[in-house]
Amino acid sequence: MPERGLLIILSGPSGVGKGTVRKAVFDSGDNDFEYSISMTTRKKRPGEVDGVDYFFRTREEFEQEIAAGQMLEYAEYVGNYYGTPLSYVNKTLDEGKDVFLEIEVQGAMKVKDKVPDGIFIFLTPPDLAALKSRIVGRGTDELDVIEKRMEIALAEIEMMSHYDYAVVNDEVNLAVGRIKSIIESEHYRVKRVLSKYVKMIKEL
Amino acid sequence: MPERGLLIILSGPSGVGKGTVRKAVFDSGDNDFEYSISMTTRKKRPGEVDGVDYFFRTREEFEQEIAAGQMLEYAEYVGNYYGTPLSYVNKTLDEGKDVFLEIEVQGAMKVKDKVPDGIFIFLTPPDLAALKSRIVGRGTDELDVIEKRMEIALAEIEMMSHYDYAVVNDEVNLAVGRIKSIIESEHYRVKRVLSKYVKMIKEL
Repeated sequence: MPERGLLIILSGPSGVGKGTVRKAVFDSGDNDFEYSISMTTRKKRPGEVDGVDYFFRTREEFEQEIAAGQMLEYAEYVGNYYGTPLSYVNKTLDEGKDVFLEIEVQGAMKVKDKVPDGIFIFLTPPDLAALKSRIVGRGTDELDVIEKRMEIALAEIEMMSHYDYAVVNDEVNLAVGRIKSIIESEHYRVKRVLSKYVKMIKEL
Repeated sequence: MPERGLLIILSGPSGVGKGTVRKAVFDSGDNDFEYSISMTTRKKRPGEVDGVDYFFRTREEFEQEIAAGQMLEYAEYVGNYYGTPLSYVNKTLDEGKDVFLEIEVQGAMKVKDKVPDGIFIFLTPPDLAALKSRIVGRGTDELDVIEKRMEIALAEIEMMSHYDYAVVNDEVNLAVGRIKSIIESEHYRVKRVLSKYVKMIKEL
């Protein structure tokens, strides 16, 4: 049996560019991980393939999966369910492949409850300076507007505290490099490597 | 004040190639860390510079440093002391630079007692298959020889369990890439990034 793969979760506040970075990670080639295919109740669009773009299911089927505890996380959006089927993720991890999941923060926290040893990566706004100017604006904004932005920033930082890594999305290709570096180095963690060695010694 | 640097400790069993890998890491360029300069009581050789190759000290001076708790670790070897001065390491870390330390396993464990948040990297023999053949040999060895090797391997694995990362030294340039990937990604750990953000928010 191969060594179990890693579950990598990319998340972050809305508008930070998660989708763009995720696509760039997969387009960058030289990857050894699988994209987690979502399950949905929305209608298949022309050109979409079941089991490739999404697992397309009826509302009833989806709710059966939920009831059976088979969704790693799910949410309802504009009248349709979207979620991550546990079976696909587990099957892929058991094959020794890493699974890459790009997801909203609410979903990521649900995944964390179920898979605490996943690698949780938080994508952050460009940089500290930009976060500051995002809050203070051009200096002509009303105090309540600034306070509202401050509140949002604090909430984002609070969110970040539940993650393992924070990657700044200043440039997409730089963010991709950082994410790949994290995934690579996580494979060298002693806690993951040790069991292989112990097993090998025992088999002698 | 800049963010404090990381202390990176490269260690591993004797003969695994720590020195070669460390030299290759520093020769590879594009590094943002300083090599930890050791302190010694051995005589300066022609061409060596105090504060560059080593901090050269008398036996009395070295023992004063030990007594003052100013050595991160030290050992006596062929009648001379060798060790890592705490002041240089702390000064460099406080300047926001990472410090890279290549050291025997006994020294590494002493460093771990004093700097538990260091990044401890264990360099391992080429690969699992090689470790196995190292133990079993050509199949013509006496049982007690094999048992002795097994004992050493188990001791090495026990050592490894105290480290954060295990890097295989199959090819020097590959090991260097892995180590640099680890150092890079450690900078993205939320525990390190979070305090910067909180500080920034407070300063607004």
